[in-house]
Amino acid sequence: MEKDMERRQLIMVPGPTNVPDRVMRAMLKPMINHRGPEFKELYVRVLENTRYVFQTKSDVALLTASGTGGVECAISNIVQGANKIVVPICGFFGERLRDNIVAMGGMTVDVPVEWGKAVNVYMIEDIVKKEKDVKAVALVYNETSTGTKINDLRAIGEFCNEHDLLFVVDAISVLGGDDLPVDDWHVDICVAGSQKCLMTPPGLALLSISDKAWSVIEKSTNTFYFNLKSYRKYEKEGQTPYTPAIPLYYALDEALKMIREEGLENAINRHKICAKAVYKAIEGLGLAPFAEEKFRSNTVIAIRYPPSINDSTFRELLRKKYNVVIAGGQGKLKGSIFRIGSMGMITQAEILQVISAVGMAMSDLGHELKLNNGLSAAREVFKEAE
Amino acid sequence: MEKDMERRQLIMVPGPTNVPDRVMRAMLKPMINHRGPEFKELYVRVLENTRYVFQTKSDVALLTASGTGGVECAISNIVQGANKIVVPICGFFGERLRDNIVAMGGMTVDVPVEWGKAVNVYMIEDIVKKEKDVKAVALVYNETSTGTKINDLRAIGEFCNEHDLLFVVDAISVLGGDDLPVDDWHVDICVAGSQKCLMTPPGLALLSISDKAWSVIEKSTNTFYFNLKSYRKYEKEGQTPYTPAIPLYYALDEALKMIREEGLENAINRHKICAKAVYKAIEGLGLAPFAEEKFRSNTVIAIRYPPSINDSTFRELLRKKYNVVIAGGQGKLKGSIFRIGSMGMITQAEILQVISAVGMAMSDLGHELKLNNGLSAAREVFKEAE
Repeated sequence: MEKDMERRQLIMVPGPTNVPDRVMRAMLKPMINHRGPEFKELYVRVLENTRYVFQTKSDVALLTASGTGGVECAISNIVQGANKIVVPICGFFGERLRDNIVAMGGMTVDVPVEWGKAVNVYMIEDIVKKEKDVKAVALVYNETSTGTKINDLRAIGEFCNEHDLLFVVDAISVLGGDDLPVDDWHVDICVAGSQKCLMTPPGLALLSISDKAWSVIEKSTNTFYFNLKSYRKYEKEGQTPYTPAIPLYYALDEALKMIREEGLENAINRHKICAKAVYKAIEGLGLAPFAEEKFRSNTVIAIRYPPSINDSTFRELLRKKYNVVIAGGQGKLKGSIFRIGSMGMITQAEILQVISAVGMAMSDLGHELKLNNGLSAAREVFKEAE
Repeated sequence: MEKDMERRQLIMVPGPTNVPDRVMRAMLKPMINHRGPEFKELYVRVLENTRYVFQTKSDVALLTASGTGGVECAISNIVQGANKIVVPICGFFGERLRDNIVAMGGMTVDVPVEWGKAVNVYMIEDIVKKEKDVKAVALVYNETSTGTKINDLRAIGEFCNEHDLLFVVDAISVLGGDDLPVDDWHVDICVAGSQKCLMTPPGLALLSISDKAWSVIEKSTNTFYFNLKSYRKYEKEGQTPYTPAIPLYYALDEALKMIREEGLENAINRHKICAKAVYKAIEGLGLAPFAEEKFRSNTVIAIRYPPSINDSTFRELLRKKYNVVIAGGQGKLKGSIFRIGSMGMITQAEILQVISAVGMAMSDLGHELKLNNGLSAAREVFKEAE
């Protein structure tokens, strides 16, 4: 088993994702004092490049925490001043966001959405008109559990801006892999994770914070580890309030440099092409995506199992025989779908490998798929994009 | 500057500390799915070895967060059921603990202690008798800002046990470097950090949790990212509730293996010998420790500056010319003391290097010290211990 762990798998789950060697090696840079000049130099550069991926001129923050910690940070910093929060729930992570708000003492107005679909701006408008005293809208842009995304995000941001509502977006599984210019789209607090489209190991959460958000945050008193005011205060000295996970900062620094080299627009476009190739291939194989077409995510592809395939048998075969790791369903979708994370360090090579493996493993289990159709459909997408 | 960063410094701050190459390299193990069998195997082993360093048969938890996140976890999970908490304040981190409790909605009874000294069991007894409805005692065992430790910890634990008070100990800067058998000493929740005596990069917090603590935690509703009930639930599947910082888990795994190889008792003894050598050397040099003798920490040594030495000039010289990084004072001690972290990967070699560098840098600045006396005093301690 120890030996197995040394074998490098193709990790196509919706995070953590495959990390480039250059990024992995960056973690080996020497340990430094987080209160010294070496850290300051690193920190200033990482923050600047974090602004670049959020496409913002506003403040950003980096937390030593996983994505959910980032969401908790966003919520706990605004919940006193912006209570009564509208939360569309399109899947497991929408539920998690709602539960996080409730645990932080917030009041939520849930907007349930059929899994496989996404909320739109009209549904938000309706609920805001009906309810009194709504202060904020918080949602998951890209719902990892169902492979859907909110294609109305820009319109929802504009609506929030016009109605003076704070707009909080969990973009953990999508920032860097799909369009999300937070300033242009009026996102007040946006949360991302290091281990998704940003090609970095897990352990850091990234946040963008608008001036409008600050006016609410300034009044908050019930946060400590995630207190954004402390982050802002220490940032003036080039420091974090609490000891940062230094190797992960080095890794993120390197990954963000790579994204700058490629160009954010190119990186996003690469994600879109890869996703398109997977969707085409899935249909070519004779399988069906879970999400309704117009809501399909560009970073997490959820696919319905044929009735004859058992989830854990299939994924174990995929892992052991084909060295490819994908995810099963979460919550009520467990057993009925599988999910491919198409994030970060993905190109034609990885996509063709995962499609081949999926096709072959299903054949091994007696469910014959049109493998050639699948591969050539994907190939077509990549050729068009060349 | 970039080039400077590649030069490996001797990091003698009170965390982060020097990390063994073996531990650094462990971070390069392949990325894995945190919901798969490879992670489960890693997680089970790390938890088992975490129990070993806490000397506990009870539950432990590992959080993707720095030490302060671990403290917040301990507090936020008990504050509803164990409100009115006695908090001795012996320095900056005692203040931070108090502020964290207040931010989480707790009521504190402060026990101010002169900086440089530590609280004792009689002070705790007095305040518990005077106050009504005290439910818990929370304290910092090893106060990093003043280089003191609470030498009465065992007695305080026994007192808490007899009076049915929950006993919460922030041992971030000391676990693995001084005595702390949490079961024997009746510590209900103990918090440690990866980046101190445990020779791992920063980014993970470790907690031990007694059955008595669980009875209070079970009633808590106001935590989410740090919700220990979620940790316990997911642990049954060999998983964490939120994506763990995988490279740091690999690193901690390797570091804990090293501690098992050395033996915890030997590791603690090594810390004690190194600390004794530093204190003897400091006196030999003609300098004075900040902490009163009986409260001196075995992991953080705080030393008073001679009046002629400027803190930032001295530490910059030490860093640039002698390649040794130490810490200045915090809060009201800024400028009047410097601090040597004597934690983790420390042996005679590192101790003699830091003492030489301190002596030489002070001489460079015109404050002649008895360098030979200092070195031979340290040498004597190591020889005795051989």
